[in-house]
Amino acid sequence: MVITMNKVFLVGSGPGDPELITLKGLNLIKKADIIIYDRLASGDLLKFARNDAELIYVGKKSGEHSYSQDEINKLLIEKANDEKTIVRLKGGDPFVFGRGGEEAKALIHSGLGFEVVPGITSAIAVPAAANIPVTDRHCASSFAVVTGQEDPKKEEKIDYGALGADTVIVLMGINNLKKIANQMLKTRSKDTPVAIIEQGTTVNQRVITCPLKDVVEKATQTKVKPPAIIVIGSVVGIREILSVVPKC
Amino acid sequence: MVITMNKVFLVGSGPGDPELITLKGLNLIKKADIIIYDRLASGDLLKFARNDAELIYVGKKSGEHSYSQDEINKLLIEKANDEKTIVRLKGGDPFVFGRGGEEAKALIHSGLGFEVVPGITSAIAVPAAANIPVTDRHCASSFAVVTGQEDPKKEEKIDYGALGADTVIVLMGINNLKKIANQMLKTRSKDTPVAIIEQGTTVNQRVITCPLKDVVEKATQTKVKPPAIIVIGSVVGIREILSVVPKC
Repeated sequence: MVITMNKVFLVGSGPGDPELITLKGLNLIKKADIIIYDRLASGDLLKFARNDAELIYVGKKSGEHSYSQDEINKLLIEKANDEKTIVRLKGGDPFVFGRGGEEAKALIHSGLGFEVVPGITSAIAVPAAANIPVTDRHCASSFAVVTGQEDPKKEEKIDYGALGADTVIVLMGINNLKKIANQMLKTRSKDTPVAIIEQGTTVNQRVITCPLKDVVEKATQTKVKPPAIIVIGSVVGIREILSVVPKC
Repeated sequence: MVITMNKVFLVGSGPGDPELITLKGLNLIKKADIIIYDRLASGDLLKFARNDAELIYVGKKSGEHSYSQDEINKLLIEKANDEKTIVRLKGGDPFVFGRGGEEAKALIHSGLGFEVVPGITSAIAVPAAANIPVTDRHCASSFAVVTGQEDPKKEEKIDYGALGADTVIVLMGINNLKKIANQMLKTRSKDTPVAIIEQGTTVNQRVITCPLKDVVEKATQTKVKPPAIIVIGSVVGIREILSVVPKC
């Protein structure tokens, strides 16, 4: 007896460049009967979908009703069907601030299954695209990834100064930059190098570097706008070495 | 005038499953004239290489001479050729404990170029394969990734207790588990959930969970062997919810 299981594939689409999806993710997009996708997933990937695939956009739309997380969960449960391949396509990695865990829990609670297909997270790929390795044998044995926009309902609040990792990567932190910088200045040198990477990995990528003590002023001067990733730590200095234009 | 640049592609092969390489990485393997690879990169990916591609293994061999990092750097410099596509294929992500930064620096110092193609890091994909999301809206706004085997020459030593992130992921930590656990017990509750994931994402994957206070004893009892990844934090508890076998 073949046991089939109603399940949803939670697929990470990567940081933006459609070529950075995994082979497994791409094959699922090609095979899918239904693709439920959001704003962060690269639109270019949808051209690989079957002509008769049902494509459902659940991301934010300006001025229109957006799906709440509960509504997305309900939709996944409603669509899950053992005769169909259902792909939930998400930006980055489904389990890194992607709320993929919540979607997986909702499916399990309804007696359904899920399979996670990891994606390249922008937390690592965006610094890499700006020539910043998040680790380095000599100056960074650890890195921390943290959100700059915490759920207000979460009981224990983040203390950015308590993240003892050599490299700290803040996602969605531009609107809280002052608070983040002030907390970090309590435990780190004011000269710690910082990079702000705006629209990382895209043709519009812009990288701003300065010491931690100047980051708020610099971000204001240069009019940094989200989406941007902030990298704090000695590894930011490697960017200068790696960004030399090679001899041709 | 077309300016060509002698460069090497530093490609991440992902955590083990060959289907978890990126489309960009796979296309480079298919096109490469020369592939310089190590033990951690999935061997199955090499079957996509051209028949006439030169494949150079620089990983460790038992009982034989292994390439030192200096020798690998020299090889990359020697092979870099603007008429050829040179791929340096590495396990996981080249910039996450992959020494990809050092290889990039060596190339730049020799007037050559590089391009990083990120890979899925086992630091996130292995917990995911064990049904552990590294972040969670309610209990984990941050995660830290740290090596369990620090370069002895590095001046500032890691204090595992000082990693204030909600989730801590230790790579290559089995041989130093006692030291790591003791440091963490100074700042975290003795009941903090821990998972040890042995041979993650492979058919031989084994997951052992226990409270932080028991982790050394449990690892000894269950004879855990490297390679294994250790996850510390409340998110380990999500595994129990997500690992329920769904109704069929």
